[in-house]
Amino acid sequence: MPVGTAGTVKAVPHEFLEEMETPIILGNTYHLYLRPGTGIIGKFGGLHNFIAWHKPILTDSGGFQVFSHRKLRKLNEEGVEFKSHLDGSTHFLSPERSIEIQQIMGSDIIMAFDECTPYPVSKIEAEDSMLLSARWAEKCRDAWTNRDSQTLFGIIQGGMFVDLRKQCIEKIEELNLPGIALGGFSVGEPKNIMYGILEELNGYLPDDKPHYLMGVGTPVDIVLSVLRGIDMFDCVLPTRNARNGMLFTWNGPVRIKNSIYSMDDSPVDLECSCPVCSRYSRAYLRHLFISREILSYTLNSLHNLHFYAGLMRKIRENIKTGTLKEFSKKIIESYQEED
Amino acid sequence: MPVGTAGTVKAVPHEFLEEMETPIILGNTYHLYLRPGTGIIGKFGGLHNFIAWHKPILTDSGGFQVFSHRKLRKLNEEGVEFKSHLDGSTHFLSPERSIEIQQIMGSDIIMAFDECTPYPVSKIEAEDSMLLSARWAEKCRDAWTNRDSQTLFGIIQGGMFVDLRKQCIEKIEELNLPGIALGGFSVGEPKNIMYGILEELNGYLPDDKPHYLMGVGTPVDIVLSVLRGIDMFDCVLPTRNARNGMLFTWNGPVRIKNSIYSMDDSPVDLECSCPVCSRYSRAYLRHLFISREILSYTLNSLHNLHFYAGLMRKIRENIKTGTLKEFSKKIIESYQEED
Repeated sequence: MPVGTAGTVKAVPHEFLEEMETPIILGNTYHLYLRPGTGIIGKFGGLHNFIAWHKPILTDSGGFQVFSHRKLRKLNEEGVEFKSHLDGSTHFLSPERSIEIQQIMGSDIIMAFDECTPYPVSKIEAEDSMLLSARWAEKCRDAWTNRDSQTLFGIIQGGMFVDLRKQCIEKIEELNLPGIALGGFSVGEPKNIMYGILEELNGYLPDDKPHYLMGVGTPVDIVLSVLRGIDMFDCVLPTRNARNGMLFTWNGPVRIKNSIYSMDDSPVDLECSCPVCSRYSRAYLRHLFISREILSYTLNSLHNLHFYAGLMRKIRENIKTGTLKEFSKKIIESYQEED
Repeated sequence: MPVGTAGTVKAVPHEFLEEMETPIILGNTYHLYLRPGTGIIGKFGGLHNFIAWHKPILTDSGGFQVFSHRKLRKLNEEGVEFKSHLDGSTHFLSPERSIEIQQIMGSDIIMAFDECTPYPVSKIEAEDSMLLSARWAEKCRDAWTNRDSQTLFGIIQGGMFVDLRKQCIEKIEELNLPGIALGGFSVGEPKNIMYGILEELNGYLPDDKPHYLMGVGTPVDIVLSVLRGIDMFDCVLPTRNARNGMLFTWNGPVRIKNSIYSMDDSPVDLECSCPVCSRYSRAYLRHLFISREILSYTLNSLHNLHFYAGLMRKIRENIKTGTLKEFSKKIIESYQEED
């Protein structure tokens, strides 16, 4: 899922997302709640109408952003008080309030409000945090009334402790929600710890529900996580890296600022059929980037989103043909230095 | 003509320009000569291939930019030495060199290299400057060898002195160039001075050639100039104002930042059929602008370019029906406070 934090996938007109058949985008409840606010989004009958995007939207619960600004929060059993990064004003998010906001936004998939356990923490802290998230998940389930039009995913926490994660799966599964997500990764832990936990959890996650690994990741992360049972991802990497001039190709990254591209009339990726590679040269993309032209951010983002869409398509194809392991080696070869 | 200074109409993907049937864009020789430089553009066989834009391009001569940075230049009969605004490096532009560069760029319309006379100046200074531009125009004509594929326009200078302007027309007309432009306006003079001169020159400009008023202007400027015999314009206003949140409508300007638009679900302009007005609300455009999202610059620019294209189309229609005077009153009514 491309990330559209504030109701726009940064620098990419909706029209381009539709052309590449983007099936779903993600919006951030924290950002949209603060600006433009639920008053405006509600007046439009939800986020789809407000941003004029009529395909599916997933919203997160706001928890991740609130817990990322650790200095700004006051936590208790009911929820969390935090200050807006925009104007310092004080706000309160709770399981009930997060679901209420997400129901006003009308997103197709909504997420339970959880505490994102930081890394590293002691096992006792991770357990307390996981148990709080589990109690909050039940409150989210109870607050979730738009069940016909919105799907609620539960979130597994438990830090880097496999037994806590398994315990959390049992608790969340008791709520019988339609989808399940793994939260609390990409918080600074070594990558092999995450892969180890995914392996251990693979048999424990319900087979009949989508498994969503939140906020991950690089091409290598994605293919290795799919090998360990994950189905869904969201990540800012394709668009953020694009704005920093890092382009994904099937032969590894291209840093478009590099002077070796100044006269290069080939496309970013010869194997890519996206509108950027079909039309523009590396030399022009380098010129736009060096000149800090807005078109640079748009074209780079468009290309990288195509790469990620292609990555997911190839992963699905290789699952069908039973060749995902071989495919993953190719991706690792091209991107190991990045990872 | 939308302005594409560095080889991109700022914030607008080529695809959108093509959809709105933009017949021609302008590129700035000064900027493109400094970056990416003629080495790279030449290697691509010209600007069209380098920027992947296959419809007409007009390039200016570089004179306006060189003379805008007055501190940076050393002028003599041969040409002008200036320092790059990018890195301070020293460069020399002359009539011959400007035409050589524009021939490498392969733009469809190229402009004579002239001295842009500042305002205010004494009559003797304006005359010296005009005579220098006229001598340079002859050198440009002689340097212009790609006559089959590129059209050269002469430029009329003479400051705000009608008799000098007329004298310049006579000199430039002796060169028998295919198009004629008026330079040295929009340099700080009161608007009524420009309109007065355009009126006086109207009968003197050759009927069988396009008349191009360089760097102008607002909707009011454009319609009043067409009434005084002008056919072609270029201006950064539609795109620059877009990036500053000023949107053109048939009922006057909309400053999208204004809080009155925060819940406004109507399009920027009910009379507009552009892709922005067909899809997005004022409230969403305001949200994007306030949030400083890149999509804001793209959508605002796209709308404003549609407005300007529509303005020129309506001007052509009103010329045919003999109603341009009435049409101009409507535009003046909507935009007088802006002008």
